[in-house]
Amino acid sequence: MRRPSIRRAAAWLLLSISGCAPTAIPPAESATTPRPSVDIDRDQITQVSVINALMLGQYDGQLPIADLHQYGDFGVGTLDHLDGELIVLDGKAYQVRGDGAVLQVDPARSTPFVVITPFDQDGTFPCPKVDSLSALDAHLATALPQQNNFVAIRIEARVASITMRSVPRQEPPYRPLSEVAKGQSVWTRQKVSGTFIGIRSPSWVDGLNVPGTHWHFLSNDHTIGGHVLDCQIGEGQGQVRYDVCGDWHLKLSESTQFNALDIGRDLRRDLKRVESSRGPADESENAK
Amino acid sequence: MRRPSIRRAAAWLLLSISGCAPTAIPPAESATTPRPSVDIDRDQITQVSVINALMLGQYDGQLPIADLHQYGDFGVGTLDHLDGELIVLDGKAYQVRGDGAVLQVDPARSTPFVVITPFDQDGTFPCPKVDSLSALDAHLATALPQQNNFVAIRIEARVASITMRSVPRQEPPYRPLSEVAKGQSVWTRQKVSGTFIGIRSPSWVDGLNVPGTHWHFLSNDHTIGGHVLDCQIGEGQGQVRYDVCGDWHLKLSESTQFNALDIGRDLRRDLKRVESSRGPADESENAK
Repeated sequence: MRRPSIRRAAAWLLLSISGCAPTAIPPAESATTPRPSVDIDRDQITQVSVINALMLGQYDGQLPIADLHQYGDFGVGTLDHLDGELIVLDGKAYQVRGDGAVLQVDPARSTPFVVITPFDQDGTFPCPKVDSLSALDAHLATALPQQNNFVAIRIEARVASITMRSVPRQEPPYRPLSEVAKGQSVWTRQKVSGTFIGIRSPSWVDGLNVPGTHWHFLSNDHTIGGHVLDCQIGEGQGQVRYDVCGDWHLKLSESTQFNALDIGRDLRRDLKRVESSRGPADESENAK
Repeated sequence: MRRPSIRRAAAWLLLSISGCAPTAIPPAESATTPRPSVDIDRDQITQVSVINALMLGQYDGQLPIADLHQYGDFGVGTLDHLDGELIVLDGKAYQVRGDGAVLQVDPARSTPFVVITPFDQDGTFPCPKVDSLSALDAHLATALPQQNNFVAIRIEARVASITMRSVPRQEPPYRPLSEVAKGQSVWTRQKVSGTFIGIRSPSWVDGLNVPGTHWHFLSNDHTIGGHVLDCQIGEGQGQVRYDVCGDWHLKLSESTQFNALDIGRDLRRDLKRVESSRGPADESENAK
């Protein structure tokens, strides 16, 4: 059973005060070498809850935003009450609200679902010219053949066009995500410079995470962001950086409510619609 | 990508030497409160590799036995070369060879698959009278309804009868586990006092772990052990102790070989045969 997390925090505090914390790393300002302040295995990708719990309407926060830094500086997820898209970039947490506004997240908020890792670059290469998000994913499947590992993918790019969405805050009793997503906002922006925050999961994570790459985007000026539905990137307009993660850590609730969920239910069709649909037109496309 | 684990070991060493390790816990002799020597989250259950990789013949060791104590003191698995059944009890690692002999494991050996946790008792109750392993599992499904959490289950019991198996050491090129298991040894013993080491996984771990409870057994005198296929326990002859684990940590290889595996393949039928079959007679039973 889960013990209060105070122990770890207290141990860390004690180490800091006593001045003998060999793993303490000062906050980095560099965009390429940010480091979280707790010594987890840097090859670890941490996930709060499982995607099917979110699909089934479990939108109550499980992990405080204030604790996110313990698990990494790079990730994607959502906020309590399904209050928009969550982006963690260079150790800072951003919320893209349902209306598209981008805000830094209050540390007092929490997340019901996030996937996060310390981004330690394993390699980099130029982003190819792509006419769609699926073309980008296809290129990366070849360029990064680690199909059974998790891969954090960071692309700094100037996009010709990008289509994003976010979802409106919900209040209990919560409806399933497939219902809520029908009310999502979708918008397209041209000629934006920013960063793609991608977490690619192996195909065998069905029900637990999103198979394939879960992409969020944040513009350099932090005014534009969201869950990416499509994009176009021109020749020489981006750089891919990646981090292969061998350790997958799932933090599961031990509540009676969580244990009552039918996690094993096949929600793949609903999930695909939630993750990649632009709206009713697309859905009829999928239904064909 | 995985960094050498030296950093963590060095940090620990430094903490120990400098005498300011707030989390250092002296080795416990008590059977009910053993504690591993590294401060992982004590609610974490750690798994090396995934069961489908083992099913597909990945028997090369991934984690040294010497490092097991970092992840817990209680668990089940196998040795490199699929060299028998691995039992971790009270922080000590035991091998049950294919011929049934029980040995303490050389720390220089390694494991291709293990599931291990610090056993922190959350509760205890008397073991009911059961005429079969499936009756025991059915009882525990009711007594421990946490269907979406991992549960470590420790039963100290005097069994009326217990049927176990182990598998013979393999040499490369490795055959799939479903083939190897046909050559398993099966034996039954009466009136033995010992400990059941059980890890119960949620039903949705298909392909990644063994859904249901993976049971190993070790007699009190350490002469009898193995993977449990069946048992009978009389009235008042055992005590169940359990530990609900909310954090599931998978350590995956980042090798090209691992990444080439078709982990998502449906091997459920093969796995069921490997985990619970007593031999050819049982298999024809299953085939009906």
